[in-house]
Amino acid sequence: MGVRLYLEEGLQAGEAVRLSPPQAHYLGQVMRLSAGDRICLFNGKDGEWEAVLETLSKKNATAILKKMRRAQNRLPDLWLLFAPIKRDRIDILVEKATELGVTRLLPVLTERTTVRRVNAERLRAHAVEAAEQTERLCVPAFEDLAPLARVLAHWPSERRLLFCDETGGGAPILDALDAAGPGPWAVLIGPEGGFAPAELDALRGLPFVTPASLGPRVLRADTAAIAALTAWQAVLGDWQARPAFRVEKNAGEGKKRQP
Amino acid sequence: MGVRLYLEEGLQAGEAVRLSPPQAHYLGQVMRLSAGDRICLFNGKDGEWEAVLETLSKKNATAILKKMRRAQNRLPDLWLLFAPIKRDRIDILVEKATELGVTRLLPVLTERTTVRRVNAERLRAHAVEAAEQTERLCVPAFEDLAPLARVLAHWPSERRLLFCDETGGGAPILDALDAAGPGPWAVLIGPEGGFAPAELDALRGLPFVTPASLGPRVLRADTAAIAALTAWQAVLGDWQARPAFRVEKNAGEGKKRQP
Repeated sequence: MGVRLYLEEGLQAGEAVRLSPPQAHYLGQVMRLSAGDRICLFNGKDGEWEAVLETLSKKNATAILKKMRRAQNRLPDLWLLFAPIKRDRIDILVEKATELGVTRLLPVLTERTTVRRVNAERLRAHAVEAAEQTERLCVPAFEDLAPLARVLAHWPSERRLLFCDETGGGAPILDALDAAGPGPWAVLIGPEGGFAPAELDALRGLPFVTPASLGPRVLRADTAAIAALTAWQAVLGDWQARPAFRVEKNAGEGKKRQP
Repeated sequence: MGVRLYLEEGLQAGEAVRLSPPQAHYLGQVMRLSAGDRICLFNGKDGEWEAVLETLSKKNATAILKKMRRAQNRLPDLWLLFAPIKRDRIDILVEKATELGVTRLLPVLTERTTVRRVNAERLRAHAVEAAEQTERLCVPAFEDLAPLARVLAHWPSERRLLFCDETGGGAPILDALDAAGPGPWAVLIGPEGGFAPAELDALRGLPFVTPASLGPRVLRADTAAIAALTAWQAVLGDWQARPAFRVEKNAGEGKKRQP
């Protein structure tokens, strides 16, 4: 696969694009590439492109776009609402959510949220890096931190909200997802201290909420998020599809194309 | 819930047990407990006990066992075979595997394993801490690092091995698990560099191997492990059960007991 980088510029055959100074550093100093080497580029809109490095110095790099490798696709529509947790765990959470195909990240404040700030810039950088590595063609959108009550008050009624109820309410997660069916969804994960009783009551009363259980053990917030996103992709998401570039090797055994 | 600690001593009503110096430090300096306070203890054999701190100083603590809170149970029989990965990620992997109910951790060397050592003592400490937090009644067993080929050569034939085939072979994971059915299982996760072609061929030829796909995106080794363990617990494990101590609050809505 080689190096894949995300950028915001438009991508079109024959055009030259300028990469950022950190990308130039990464290509030259970390990956040891030089002018003439091939890389992949994507911007979340124009598909994935093969490009050739035209110039590469310590702080500057340009690349010429050669051909499109994959047309732009849309991921299944899946948001993640999460209460901020401490630094190393929130970094993991954002990385894993990106690998697991989340399209929008919404940090929310709950009553028992002890971490009251997020470093959006650092988290967005983690999401970009994870998107580059996981072969996504887009980077998750990132909302500003907002109180959960406000997010729920403006909730789009057609979007279901999977509420991982650590008090044991809700059906086992696969059953809950299967019964509710496909469409736009969001997963809600509370803070390490759990939801307050008033929050639990409010959530259980909302018509778009699907409560679900993640089994008999107590899971940390980041584990619960990864588990819920896994279950969603497996039941309602795109996990019936095969890896785009690796299908050929396995022709013969139940070959499927990506949607 | 309060504080839960794992220890190796036998647990019996009325007996006094001595806690380790790090546990005494944790109880007094971190949790700010003092003599007379209640804690929970478990040892993987005798259930979970309520105990009262009898003495507590900076380096020493003793507790008197009062009554059993939960009888010893057995978790579903699930091993995890994993190639060592770098330090922060292997710590996460062991923590999450413990939360997700793995009963035995088996680090294995594959052809492309770049990290060739594991710090078993540090990983075991992570597993103990995760077991304490996740309300397990046991700590996962930990095997010595061994070459994958040797582990497979001595494989117990009745145990199925879920092989997360990143090349896209195998059915989608929920289907693969559902088709293979319950019993003793293990999950195998390769190194960040993937399996070598000869390893892939060998794995595909083994009668106890169930290949499975984790969808179209490239997952890091730790993400793949967490996702596979989640799917296993949800389909074949104990995720039909409710949290042991939280059932009462939800009497009425689909109450179930743990097995």
